[in-house]
Amino acid sequence: MRTPPHATTPAAARAAFRAGRAEPTAGWADGHTQANLIAVPADWAYDVLLFAQRNPRPCPVLDVTEPGGVTTPLAPGADLRTDLPRYRVWRDGRPVAEPTDVADVWRDDLVAFLIGCSFTFEGALRAAGVPLRHVEQGRNVAMYVTNRQCRPAGRLRGPLVVSMRPVPAGLVETAHRLTALMPAVHGAPVHAGDPAELGIADPARPDFGDPCAALDGDMPVFWACGVTPQAALAASAPPFAITHAPGHMLVTDVRDEEYRVL
Amino acid sequence: MRTPPHATTPAAARAAFRAGRAEPTAGWADGHTQANLIAVPADWAYDVLLFAQRNPRPCPVLDVTEPGGVTTPLAPGADLRTDLPRYRVWRDGRPVAEPTDVADVWRDDLVAFLIGCSFTFEGALRAAGVPLRHVEQGRNVAMYVTNRQCRPAGRLRGPLVVSMRPVPAGLVETAHRLTALMPAVHGAPVHAGDPAELGIADPARPDFGDPCAALDGDMPVFWACGVTPQAALAASAPPFAITHAPGHMLVTDVRDEEYRVL
Repeated sequence: MRTPPHATTPAAARAAFRAGRAEPTAGWADGHTQANLIAVPADWAYDVLLFAQRNPRPCPVLDVTEPGGVTTPLAPGADLRTDLPRYRVWRDGRPVAEPTDVADVWRDDLVAFLIGCSFTFEGALRAAGVPLRHVEQGRNVAMYVTNRQCRPAGRLRGPLVVSMRPVPAGLVETAHRLTALMPAVHGAPVHAGDPAELGIADPARPDFGDPCAALDGDMPVFWACGVTPQAALAASAPPFAITHAPGHMLVTDVRDEEYRVL
Repeated sequence: MRTPPHATTPAAARAAFRAGRAEPTAGWADGHTQANLIAVPADWAYDVLLFAQRNPRPCPVLDVTEPGGVTTPLAPGADLRTDLPRYRVWRDGRPVAEPTDVADVWRDDLVAFLIGCSFTFEGALRAAGVPLRHVEQGRNVAMYVTNRQCRPAGRLRGPLVVSMRPVPAGLVETAHRLTALMPAVHGAPVHAGDPAELGIADPARPDFGDPCAALDGDMPVFWACGVTPQAALAASAPPFAITHAPGHMLVTDVRDEEYRVL
């Protein structure tokens, strides 16, 4: 019998992805932190790190590699070029490929940033009785480009991207409080309620991930999202970059609780 | 009648320091965040920013200037070259002067980092009934170089520096909980109890600031300290840097509550 994704170990998850399995990581390796990836040439690394510092809600940095490095203490034994289920390769601000492996295009001058992911707080939400509609529906989380601009840094600028979860209205406060305690993985919601406030015209058509059906009495709740650096790539057009494909994260060995302040 | 330091506005505090008043800022402008300063040549900026990312407890970054910039949105109207009460000028890893103004030695290629300061959580401690012995005693907080090494970044390395506050044993848990909620200004203590655990041989002789008398039943509690980057300057010897003098901070306009996650 195969281990179901939620019960797998992080190392086993990474091994499956390294072997070519290519699906969103929502719900994989319960209790372990997942991370967004953005790798840029070293001469863009300061811009990315400063952009992250200036926009900590969408871009909480969990680790930064040395130039050319493909490992991280967050996931011992992992190779960042092969162990995510799917990648995006960017040239001049446009995604040009979505391979399951980037060993052939990785460069010696790349610096990789691992950015906190909201999947990390989903365990805390579920434990408190906050349902996760996208997991129930077997879908990737819905993500939207908003009308809010990040604070620019060097050559990098771009809009805030958010993830959305429908939350029963009576549990929105709970969801706020629990996620506020995890600032390293996006922290409290940036908005709850009307999607139009964020410039989202049609919630049924997310910019990334899958649409998510709300139930009666649910309110849409929006958290800053680690896909924000990809929107900055699109807006700022560095010559080259590699990221994860939205929703296809690095599964780390770090326990979610490590990023809770209390 | 003069306004006492604790009741002054941040702008008035900065004006007094600009005019030459030179004393530690502990207790000044109650309710407003204070910040550590470290300014380095632009070609060292990535090292400092990465060092901060890798050591977020001692080095939570609140703002970073553009090269040559001397202003910050944290303190509108402030000039970083004149508005701190006392500075340190560093050459090749050694402090060579402690002037009250650095306008004459500031360089166009300097990038300034403003780092969170534990003074920011003192209001929350006092409001919860945790006494602040150093403020009661009219002294600068006591700071110590520890035997713990920070995670290096680029050319920067160095030991963790901590601030110490004696806290009544029954209130240590309260102090822990309150400060854990403020990760942007050092967060929870790194240690409580035996100073020898941190390699502190003689608590009566702090490396920076003033010794602080404990009362019966007090336990020494240690928080990561924003002087840590200065210990990294001493260990790593960049050719030039400007910092605040320990305890002589930038008083910002930001309310302390802004850095509380709940």
